[in-house]
Amino acid sequence: MDDTVRQHKYVLSEDQMPTVWYNIIPDLPSPPPPPLHPGRLDPVGPDDLAPLFPMELIMQEVSTDRYIEIPGGVLDVYRQWRPSPLFRAHRLEQALGTPARIYYKYEGVSPAGSHKPNTSVPQAYYNKKEGTRKLTTETGAGQWGTALAYACAIYGLECEVWQVGASYDAKPYRRMMIEAFGASVHRSPSDLTEVGRMLGADPRNFTGSLGIAISEAVEVAATNADTRYALGSVLNHVLLHQTIIGQEAMLQLAMAGDTPTHIVGCTGGGSNFAGLSFPFLKEKLEGRMSPRIIAAEPASCPSLTKGVYAYDFGDTAGMTPLMKMHTLGHDFIPDPIHAGGLRYHGMAPLISHIYELGLMEAEAVPQTECFAAAIQFARTEGIVPAPEPTHAIALAIREALKAKETGEETVILTALCGHGHFDLSAYDQYLRGEMVDEAVSDERFASALSTLPKVPA
Amino acid sequence: MDDTVRQHKYVLSEDQMPTVWYNIIPDLPSPPPPPLHPGRLDPVGPDDLAPLFPMELIMQEVSTDRYIEIPGGVLDVYRQWRPSPLFRAHRLEQALGTPARIYYKYEGVSPAGSHKPNTSVPQAYYNKKEGTRKLTTETGAGQWGTALAYACAIYGLECEVWQVGASYDAKPYRRMMIEAFGASVHRSPSDLTEVGRMLGADPRNFTGSLGIAISEAVEVAATNADTRYALGSVLNHVLLHQTIIGQEAMLQLAMAGDTPTHIVGCTGGGSNFAGLSFPFLKEKLEGRMSPRIIAAEPASCPSLTKGVYAYDFGDTAGMTPLMKMHTLGHDFIPDPIHAGGLRYHGMAPLISHIYELGLMEAEAVPQTECFAAAIQFARTEGIVPAPEPTHAIALAIREALKAKETGEETVILTALCGHGHFDLSAYDQYLRGEMVDEAVSDERFASALSTLPKVPA
Repeated sequence: MDDTVRQHKYVLSEDQMPTVWYNIIPDLPSPPPPPLHPGRLDPVGPDDLAPLFPMELIMQEVSTDRYIEIPGGVLDVYRQWRPSPLFRAHRLEQALGTPARIYYKYEGVSPAGSHKPNTSVPQAYYNKKEGTRKLTTETGAGQWGTALAYACAIYGLECEVWQVGASYDAKPYRRMMIEAFGASVHRSPSDLTEVGRMLGADPRNFTGSLGIAISEAVEVAATNADTRYALGSVLNHVLLHQTIIGQEAMLQLAMAGDTPTHIVGCTGGGSNFAGLSFPFLKEKLEGRMSPRIIAAEPASCPSLTKGVYAYDFGDTAGMTPLMKMHTLGHDFIPDPIHAGGLRYHGMAPLISHIYELGLMEAEAVPQTECFAAAIQFARTEGIVPAPEPTHAIALAIREALKAKETGEETVILTALCGHGHFDLSAYDQYLRGEMVDEAVSDERFASALSTLPKVPA
Repeated sequence: MDDTVRQHKYVLSEDQMPTVWYNIIPDLPSPPPPPLHPGRLDPVGPDDLAPLFPMELIMQEVSTDRYIEIPGGVLDVYRQWRPSPLFRAHRLEQALGTPARIYYKYEGVSPAGSHKPNTSVPQAYYNKKEGTRKLTTETGAGQWGTALAYACAIYGLECEVWQVGASYDAKPYRRMMIEAFGASVHRSPSDLTEVGRMLGADPRNFTGSLGIAISEAVEVAATNADTRYALGSVLNHVLLHQTIIGQEAMLQLAMAGDTPTHIVGCTGGGSNFAGLSFPFLKEKLEGRMSPRIIAAEPASCPSLTKGVYAYDFGDTAGMTPLMKMHTLGHDFIPDPIHAGGLRYHGMAPLISHIYELGLMEAEAVPQTECFAAAIQFARTEGIVPAPEPTHAIALAIREALKAKETGEETVILTALCGHGHFDLSAYDQYLRGEMVDEAVSDERFASALSTLPKVPA
């Protein structure tokens, strides 16, 4: 028996927890293109967004300040689970026989089980402060809905969630968790909104999509004065709030005495990836580190590797501003893979811009490779990951196996953004040998892209 | 908005993690009565237990050493999630309007989501060290099965779990989690064992019980040379391993500058309760503290408040040694409440002995009171508890409300021994108003007690 006590976990004290969020925009060689008003086709201003968001979040959305202070009332709640641990994957490395050192930042320790409370908490906080009574939102797999329900319970806001039909049917425990926190949940498309009734009339929309659920939640917020809307990814202020992840990870890697050569994160809307990588990208831009920064996206919804960089809507009904992003088309309905949180047609405009600048890479990973990696991870590291971060784990394993061939001591940092306690039916399907990789034809991509809105150059 | 940053969480560094387990036996005024051989009716010796347990655990079972060193190979794995946090329940206190200060030690941060890995890890470790190839066990709600499957994955042992039929049917996610860790799961009663075939023939046993599942797992271990058995509660060595909880909590309460007036833990077999309370009971025995120590048991299976103190079997089929304990009778089948981990007919002999010595109290709590408390806890503290610790939360709330009446600043320490991610259907039932309190008639208790084995005084 090996009785060596190894350092698996790097923990920060509460005093070491960052008290600012990091805004990457002022550090980029050029700013990202602005969102456009869907009717006027000119840049949206704060007034356009005011029906949906509190002013403090709108100001963060357009801020060019490098650091934004985290309010005391948010820090107070963050400290329930933050700083989150960074783990060295000794047992996984051993199983792979790799000279690579693999670190993972674990956000599954939050009350909602993912990184999402990093932004749901400040979003609920600012809304409460500015007099909002109720927040509406969409959720796919349910991570975001759970996180917002939790934050609303803490600050005493009502919360109403539209859950993508396919997930609502397949993952009832997520709905129950959201309800345990006191929020209400509707299956989307619902008959509670105009857009839900309209889109729901088409049987092809029966299983729903994030785009449809967003349209429903936005409609209710836009038409009720005391109600606002909260988005769980994509927007600048959401990515901003997640940067606490990367800031902590940087301190923790320094404790381990290591500098990353690879930073790998899964991407749906992009907030987890941005949260982990942006603080390191600052180091890279300023020449202090030179990690490869790689987005792991699902083969069934590969907005970076198969999408186009163009102005498109954030939702299916075309109610949101137009955002310049890598998109598969706002009416692209991805196959119902288990990583519901990655089934979004577009990529955050800020990440899309950074990708265009050549500061990062992207790779698509098929679902069965993800679950093979997840099982190996669970049986060595003891944590059952959510389907979303299995994409990052699979890519980390690809890189670790390359290192095994070359003998290179690469240092891989990845984000384990949530646990898979509500996704075990996916594991069951995989272990029974019944999981298949969905193949999306080029025709389907092309067809969805044909409906991109026309925007003059 | 209240922007005060309050201290919610008390965290120890890894260096402060205890490196010994605490054995209370040498500190008690008298030792607990010994277990008896079921045939010979004389005290069992190490040789009697050798087919089931590795020698190191048998020596711990009968040890009179006050402290037992935790091996390096166990500390290495403990550090994945230990030291676990102690939380001050500020928001719950505020909602209750109580002057009481409520602290909870949270064990749901472990990979299996409960306190169970505190003992599954050393049990797997010692078995591996002594050449065991496979471990068998029973599980109710699934917390213990998950914990043992996790530990077996870490140390490279096979693992076979018999899950109580009612839980197997109602909580498929637990089975899937156990399988994700690489163990196999059987519905109990199964047709894989003699005792399963025999007891399974009676339709009243269709939903199973912990007692039946234990009989099946013990049979397989006893009849296979390279296979041993692991128990998740009740025995001295299991309680011993859990004392790391209370040792840590004592250091953390000292950080908070508080001394507990009430220590409240839920009791099924008793390991969580013992783990939290024994280190404090030492302080009480030696006059340094005087907390009330209260066991919270389910009204449907109240072994301390409704059972008798007598020698009884640990399992239904009568294969285990006889243990002197508070028992409802080894063939008592509790109603299928949601707190599957508390559905055990007996109480740990060591706790039963301490209860007889008058060093602790017990109260039974009905299920609906537990879930009302759980919802209030989830919506204030942000954690959805497993059904088992909701009993302790309900009792803590009872005491906090008493303090509100008297104005007394009581200090309540409780154990939140696991999260409820796999128990959300229970919350759903409660929120739909469909949960009822099971009432057990005195006749049913009396009938089960009529089959107690005869043991000469």
